[in-house]
Amino acid sequence: MTHPAEGELGRRAMARLTTLRAITDVPGRLERLFLSPAHRRAADAVADMMREAGCDTVRIDALGTVVGRYEGDSPGLPALLVGSHIDTVRDAGAFDGTLGVVAAIGVVEALARAGERLPFAVEALAFGDEENVRFPSLLSSSRALAGTLDAGVTDLRDADGVKLGDALLAFGGDPAGVAALARGRADTLGYLEVHIEQGPVLEAEGLPVGVVTAINGASRRRVVVTGEAGHAGTVPMGLRRDALATAAEMVLAAQRIGGEAPERVATIGILTVEPGAANVIPGRVAFTLDARSPSDADREAMVSAIEAAFRAIAARRGAGVTIELISDTRACPCDEGLSGLLAEAVTRRQVGLRRLPSGAGHDAMAMAALCPVAMLFVRCKGGISHNPAEDITEADADMALRVLLDAVRRYRPAA
Amino acid sequence: MTHPAEGELGRRAMARLTTLRAITDVPGRLERLFLSPAHRRAADAVADMMREAGCDTVRIDALGTVVGRYEGDSPGLPALLVGSHIDTVRDAGAFDGTLGVVAAIGVVEALARAGERLPFAVEALAFGDEENVRFPSLLSSSRALAGTLDAGVTDLRDADGVKLGDALLAFGGDPAGVAALARGRADTLGYLEVHIEQGPVLEAEGLPVGVVTAINGASRRRVVVTGEAGHAGTVPMGLRRDALATAAEMVLAAQRIGGEAPERVATIGILTVEPGAANVIPGRVAFTLDARSPSDADREAMVSAIEAAFRAIAARRGAGVTIELISDTRACPCDEGLSGLLAEAVTRRQVGLRRLPSGAGHDAMAMAALCPVAMLFVRCKGGISHNPAEDITEADADMALRVLLDAVRRYRPAA
Repeated sequence: MTHPAEGELGRRAMARLTTLRAITDVPGRLERLFLSPAHRRAADAVADMMREAGCDTVRIDALGTVVGRYEGDSPGLPALLVGSHIDTVRDAGAFDGTLGVVAAIGVVEALARAGERLPFAVEALAFGDEENVRFPSLLSSSRALAGTLDAGVTDLRDADGVKLGDALLAFGGDPAGVAALARGRADTLGYLEVHIEQGPVLEAEGLPVGVVTAINGASRRRVVVTGEAGHAGTVPMGLRRDALATAAEMVLAAQRIGGEAPERVATIGILTVEPGAANVIPGRVAFTLDARSPSDADREAMVSAIEAAFRAIAARRGAGVTIELISDTRACPCDEGLSGLLAEAVTRRQVGLRRLPSGAGHDAMAMAALCPVAMLFVRCKGGISHNPAEDITEADADMALRVLLDAVRRYRPAA
Repeated sequence: MTHPAEGELGRRAMARLTTLRAITDVPGRLERLFLSPAHRRAADAVADMMREAGCDTVRIDALGTVVGRYEGDSPGLPALLVGSHIDTVRDAGAFDGTLGVVAAIGVVEALARAGERLPFAVEALAFGDEENVRFPSLLSSSRALAGTLDAGVTDLRDADGVKLGDALLAFGGDPAGVAALARGRADTLGYLEVHIEQGPVLEAEGLPVGVVTAINGASRRRVVVTGEAGHAGTVPMGLRRDALATAAEMVLAAQRIGGEAPERVATIGILTVEPGAANVIPGRVAFTLDARSPSDADREAMVSAIEAAFRAIAARRGAGVTIELISDTRACPCDEGLSGLLAEAVTRRQVGLRRLPSGAGHDAMAMAALCPVAMLFVRCKGGISHNPAEDITEADADMALRVLLDAVRRYRPAA
């Protein structure tokens, strides 16, 4: 094998990220929502990068995903898919998703420059609908490939009332062609994704990369606490049923129970108080609960304990509580074979091996319905993500691309 | 003395309240903000009621207050003022303020029907700016009489940008005449106000009326807790600085400290969470603190203890906290002489005497800068106020008016 010069993969990845971070719908900050004009320009730029890197064919599929195919020993072999997404949140950082796309391009480029063909094809993918910001169509790009996308997805509307199907036509896509995007299992060997960690664990442990064990399952609940509103000056403390004081106990209970096992988390991220006046005792508080764990059994135990605590607190304080199910998503374990290739590549680079769950969702979750998946996390500064301050070092990008390239090169399809 | 028939005062008061509750700016609910069209119509209706009741002169003053004067033994004697307000909150009940206005009218009516002149004049007042909903001009009507109103009040603007002075012109008032409304101390003997309790104490004790000892002092603070926002799935519980969990401890501390003495209260009525997404750890929480007590020393001790608890909680959790002073208002003790007249009248009616502080602010607070003040509270259903469900019984209204009439009749100016 011919290896790229030390630092070369990272340098080129960072250059491509610099190009892509300038492509935005909102001047002065990075924002590329699914099917927006900036998404189209970014898809075109990624397609150009894929061609320049040496992909044999490059296309933007019916739902806007950029697909660059690098054939194997012979044309038409089953493919190992490598990629991530190029859509962003509002006021985003430059690395979430896009790093995984330029990593895939870098792998193809290294193979093409070395004139190296593998006993399988490699496809670099740039999905467009991972962040779930514009349409309520979570992971539609990767679900289309996995064959798990609802036919009604094109009827979903954004906050301005624009249908996804119409936005797709304006983008240059083909709503009628979405159903045909589903890949065959025989043609699809696996899916690898490099992504920034979006958390502080690798940084805290001084490690550039880590291998993902599973994408955590997540439970969402909507909780409404009902007390009794009243005048803040006239109702004695002993006669109050303050919905906010009740909810405050619940927030602390969720935090405590969420901390009772090492890899679980519980978060109350939205909380609203009604009627919401300085001189009125809160009568109603609504909040969200988000609970995640790499183990479904642990997540279910955690949510049960939190819900029981909420009911006990409400009963003790004479308040009402309703707990509404929003979603329960099972954990997505990564494939041991593919993850093992990443882990061996990490170990060969003399980096301490850290396996860790992914607390955030990723396209790999959707791809797991189609094929084995594995993910490599990259240390990010301060664990910060979904924020312009999101950052990684060029050295860590280089490490991630070398590990990914090594794993792809050593991968062999089952006989 | 000629006494009205049992129940007559209450019956007529409830009839007047029924007339006034129909005068609203918003069909289907009661809403009369200061200087609105409905405020004008209500002022005209009150003026008509005052004339019909037997006032010798009735006028609507330069700032919209309705003043009905019933002369004493001879014209031009110093006056005992009796009244309350006819402005309301949004989606209001029919009794807050307006009950005190119809009570004053009922007292004049009883005197006039009996042909009874006292050794002082009685003035029935209907203030228009007590609720502080439209303009940030708290108690401007009564402060104008007390001579404590800022000259700049007419430049204040409502949420639509309308200047108070322009609204006053549209109402038919006279911005240039506001300064001259200040009453002379020699002409003003005292101020009596009947008001619904707006709390549950009298109902809990089975009493129709109570005599107010003091209007509680109130402290307002704006508190901002700064933690660190982060991804709800990726930041381990042990590495979080969750601003909402920190604020939740503060809410409970305020509730605990507010309950440590019987007549103090502490309330967090507004609380907002940023960034406010289900999958983001809260980075910033802002909330209000409202703390009240009939004793200024107790209120100051309570606020100091709460602020110290907030700082200790923030420090322990590695969060930032800022505590901004919004206001500190001293308690307003009621006059012992005037309150004693009310108390004796209660006792003569064979009702158990209950003295209690007022947790809410009232026009009497402003009038206290001008003259001795006293207040009589009336039991209200469930302690509910600022709500369409606000309610009192006709029997309790009758009791309140009889007590007020008795106190007015027995009042004698100092020699």
